[in-house]
Amino acid sequence: MKLTAPALDETGADGRGDVPGHDGRGRFDLLFEPAGRKVRVPPGVMLFDAASWNGIAIDSTCGGHGTCRKCKVQVSEGLAPITNLDTRAFSTEELRDGWRLACRVEITNNLRVQVPELVTRPKAATVGVGRKVILRPAVQKRYVELDEPTLSDQRSDLERLLASLDDLELRAELPVLRALGGVLRASDYRVTAVVVDDVLVDVEPGDTTGRLFGIAFDLGTTTVVATLLDLSTGAPVAVQSMLNKQQPFGADVITRISAIMMDPRALEKLSSLAHEALDELAQAVCLEGAVRPDEVYEVAIAGNATMTHIALGIDPEPLGVAPFIMSTKLFPETLAADVGVSIHERARAVIFPAFGAYVGGDIVSGLLASGMDRDSRERLFLDIGTNCELVLGNCDRLLATAAPAGPAFEGAAIRCGMRAAPGAIEVVRMTAQELELGVIGDVEAQGLCGSGLVDAVAELVQLKLLDASGRFVSDDVARELAPGVGARLTQLGKERVFVLHWRGDEGDVEQSIYLSQRDVRELQFAKASIATGWRILLEEAGLAVEDLQQVLLAGSFGSYLSPASAVRIGLVPNLPVLRVVSAGNVAGEGAKMALLSLRERAGAMALLDEVEYVELSDRADFNDRFVDQLAFPD
Amino acid sequence: MKLTAPALDETGADGRGDVPGHDGRGRFDLLFEPAGRKVRVPPGVMLFDAASWNGIAIDSTCGGHGTCRKCKVQVSEGLAPITNLDTRAFSTEELRDGWRLACRVEITNNLRVQVPELVTRPKAATVGVGRKVILRPAVQKRYVELDEPTLSDQRSDLERLLASLDDLELRAELPVLRALGGVLRASDYRVTAVVVDDVLVDVEPGDTTGRLFGIAFDLGTTTVVATLLDLSTGAPVAVQSMLNKQQPFGADVITRISAIMMDPRALEKLSSLAHEALDELAQAVCLEGAVRPDEVYEVAIAGNATMTHIALGIDPEPLGVAPFIMSTKLFPETLAADVGVSIHERARAVIFPAFGAYVGGDIVSGLLASGMDRDSRERLFLDIGTNCELVLGNCDRLLATAAPAGPAFEGAAIRCGMRAAPGAIEVVRMTAQELELGVIGDVEAQGLCGSGLVDAVAELVQLKLLDASGRFVSDDVARELAPGVGARLTQLGKERVFVLHWRGDEGDVEQSIYLSQRDVRELQFAKASIATGWRILLEEAGLAVEDLQQVLLAGSFGSYLSPASAVRIGLVPNLPVLRVVSAGNVAGEGAKMALLSLRERAGAMALLDEVEYVELSDRADFNDRFVDQLAFPD
Repeated sequence: MKLTAPALDETGADGRGDVPGHDGRGRFDLLFEPAGRKVRVPPGVMLFDAASWNGIAIDSTCGGHGTCRKCKVQVSEGLAPITNLDTRAFSTEELRDGWRLACRVEITNNLRVQVPELVTRPKAATVGVGRKVILRPAVQKRYVELDEPTLSDQRSDLERLLASLDDLELRAELPVLRALGGVLRASDYRVTAVVVDDVLVDVEPGDTTGRLFGIAFDLGTTTVVATLLDLSTGAPVAVQSMLNKQQPFGADVITRISAIMMDPRALEKLSSLAHEALDELAQAVCLEGAVRPDEVYEVAIAGNATMTHIALGIDPEPLGVAPFIMSTKLFPETLAADVGVSIHERARAVIFPAFGAYVGGDIVSGLLASGMDRDSRERLFLDIGTNCELVLGNCDRLLATAAPAGPAFEGAAIRCGMRAAPGAIEVVRMTAQELELGVIGDVEAQGLCGSGLVDAVAELVQLKLLDASGRFVSDDVARELAPGVGARLTQLGKERVFVLHWRGDEGDVEQSIYLSQRDVRELQFAKASIATGWRILLEEAGLAVEDLQQVLLAGSFGSYLSPASAVRIGLVPNLPVLRVVSAGNVAGEGAKMALLSLRERAGAMALLDEVEYVELSDRADFNDRFVDQLAFPD
Repeated sequence: MKLTAPALDETGADGRGDVPGHDGRGRFDLLFEPAGRKVRVPPGVMLFDAASWNGIAIDSTCGGHGTCRKCKVQVSEGLAPITNLDTRAFSTEELRDGWRLACRVEITNNLRVQVPELVTRPKAATVGVGRKVILRPAVQKRYVELDEPTLSDQRSDLERLLASLDDLELRAELPVLRALGGVLRASDYRVTAVVVDDVLVDVEPGDTTGRLFGIAFDLGTTTVVATLLDLSTGAPVAVQSMLNKQQPFGADVITRISAIMMDPRALEKLSSLAHEALDELAQAVCLEGAVRPDEVYEVAIAGNATMTHIALGIDPEPLGVAPFIMSTKLFPETLAADVGVSIHERARAVIFPAFGAYVGGDIVSGLLASGMDRDSRERLFLDIGTNCELVLGNCDRLLATAAPAGPAFEGAAIRCGMRAAPGAIEVVRMTAQELELGVIGDVEAQGLCGSGLVDAVAELVQLKLLDASGRFVSDDVARELAPGVGARLTQLGKERVFVLHWRGDEGDVEQSIYLSQRDVRELQFAKASIATGWRILLEEAGLAVEDLQQVLLAGSFGSYLSPASAVRIGLVPNLPVLRVVSAGNVAGEGAKMALLSLRERAGAMALLDEVEYVELSDRADFNDRFVDQLAFPD
């Protein structure tokens, strides 16, 4: 531990200029003691955040703003420059011994850090893909009993209140000031201050500290999900979901952007529909959880760039046409009211930032929930939909890209395709002798959804009724290879089709649920696009398929997709099926994490710098590689 | 110049802990070279501000946020700790030579500072009481021509724009983002960024840099004045004023507060009336100045605490009853729209902070305009109205208090009293032989306003028709002392009155404009309250009347008051009349300064810490001293 002014370190380094920038390259080792926990983090991350992300709790009440001066740690090895705040928090002796405020230490080299034991065990919740989150929500409540003013103590109402919260440096907004005097006097100066990050959003009469809630939204193109969280325990109180009300304007983001390009008034309409969906869900979870809407002080919204832009009333047109430009990566301070959610009137909305037009806030949120940047295993994160987002890597390096998959997995552009709703065939199991279908709901099959499509093609490839190029074999070969099901391969007009389910009379192909040769082609295009994406990422990272330790399938489609089928058709790398796992609704989980911890929220921001984006659309070799991936693996 | 880490200075001082706090006590000397200018400033002030306040221009484009790194100065004597930003702005060699960013140097000891010559001479304007203000408005415009996005440059619209403004660190609000994409594309990426302090408030197509305006409001209890300023030159473009529309609710702040206490709906009504007045004036100055309202991006409002609270919709009741508590001293970020002013929709409103319930933002503004804290002369600042605010001192120390003067100076509670409006006697000159009146407007006298009242009493005291105790002499003595005017002293009912102007028949006292014995008593109470105030301040400061070098009379009443009369009745200290000067509408001038310079705005904030408030109402000796001051000086 050397102790000099940052600029005067004898190496000539200023502690910043000569280290790798916070650009996703380079990592430093941190050793936390006495826990003995060793972690690797990118340069530029704050020590306080790095500790929290790895389950190491450090004392703090201010949310990392440098105002409470409680996050004291001792840096016993490595250089941690002294900041202005350190000089106010520590004696010269302590500074010499390496004591620093963890929230001010920007990591620029390897560090060994002694973390003082906490007096009380911090609360934590398990969220996301088995992630333990230390509870440090942006929302906090403080009950205070203030001295009444006198002629010898004429501090203003706000000064009086803020003096009782002197570990925080808060700003109060005009509406709070309008109510403050009345509330203080009506409640005999016994009030609860409601704080969101560094803003005093309300002052409530009496002690209401037991009631503080937030809502995590997964604002999907297809489905919107809301989870009401008790921010004091981290427990989910209620969950509700609904279809995105923008569906009448198109099933995917491109058709919705097109609708706005055609009709300038459509933006306002689509924006209102997003607000309605968010608000209806908010009211529903409050009702279900017996929580008053004005007890909800913050929401977090994870959505792709298009959904986010529209919800905020920003024209998404530039997202939809080359060169695919976002209005902004980082969204400004937003109120829940700005996105139509009627909860506490000063409640904040945290909008997940986006990497790019096609790797949006839902993916940032999903990566956060998956802990992609904090795990040494090489993993591939796949969020499959009309657009597929792919992220490859581990705590040392993360690469991302987007691949246009088309609507096949949504059941669109497929002859008998449908959304994953009651009546959809979601599972197909086939042997040479028999065919077995899994249908959503207790109803007759009415169509084929994405997971059923993948299953059907995988089984047909397995039985060799589809050859490696994706062509159906002849009727004769089919009957020979699969005596029990081969006869289902037949003709509809000029097209070869495989009947999955007879409706009406057997033999009435037109009324049946079938898979057509063209459907197979659609699926091949989709999977080739995705496979090209992860193959290029692997190559960029210098990895082989064998180096991969896990494939995480994100999103609801990922939950239903059969890993074996996905491997069989080459949609995902050829790993043992147990290593291909559904990660569930990770976008929604990341939104929960952002509500439960300011540190995790900082983690989402850090991801923006850590992930390197690989653009596919301007690669000269993309088309050749895409064609190579059209075939099914042998 | 020693160069060590702040905490490791061998004196053991950390550069902060051991110096006097920023509490109005203690001053440090700064020597600016090559100008050779020596100034004294309170501890805690930033070097950049101190230079600007004293007319020393230092390069800067960011408004002192530490982002442009242009305000480079060399500290050649004295300790200026190195901050994180300095290490990024300077080489080790430069730091060793004492180079620092002036906006980061907090003054904690005496300094000798070398200021590099500016390439271009900075613009300045003369405002306030002869104060030269270097133009650094919070509002700035930048015309930029951006590269269009491509597949290899997919930065978001906001990132692209902000990269062209890299000396600033701006936050953009949601409404700006909503418009940004459209404006960029419609104007071929040639736009003007409109910045207020650190907020991007608009992006306008093409080059609009020539048009930026602000409005300074003096929001008085009686009169509201608006001045439209061209922020690029500092020139006033138009001025308009009107009576405060709240007059029907009472002439002074106490009656307006009472109205709100009686009727809870009155606050909303009074608040709307304030908004209407501000907006009508805003529209009027824009019309007069041929400026579009949306070219006005900021307003500054100087008003007393009650006017300010009401305009912001904050209940002023606690201001009106002991212990006289403000809702807040410092007002939060406010939009012009929050106070009803319809100019640019994101325009900001700067609300002057207040010392206390009875020394409000108008006084802070007035002190700023008077330069009370930057002048070595001992001066007394008096703002006389229903409430009188008094500030005594110089650049070393400032003491303030408020004295309740009652409504006499407003012409209220005076039998023939009236506001200073057409028909009001505003000047009275009397010898033993004759009486001469000055009446406002070309009309017959209809009443007596404050300055006329003071004149009348002063002249009667001078002629000894009023004795030192304030009692009219007998008719006989009057006729003897003043043959030409003594007969005007007569009787109305049981009261002694002095007729100033006969209306109707001579001898019809009831129809005349007169001064009654009770009127004289009212004036005595008012002047005794004020005189007690400044005598206590002088005593607290350890000064005698002879030490005073100037009395500044602020506000419109101060402009009309005769210095000789004010001295004669003992309202102001007994100085040569040339040293008793009208400072004019200093509240409005301070508001202009706040619009023209962020540094002057910081100066207003610094005043809050520099001025020591002396509370009169809880002083045991107040009543005795008050009674001593009732008499007129011999």
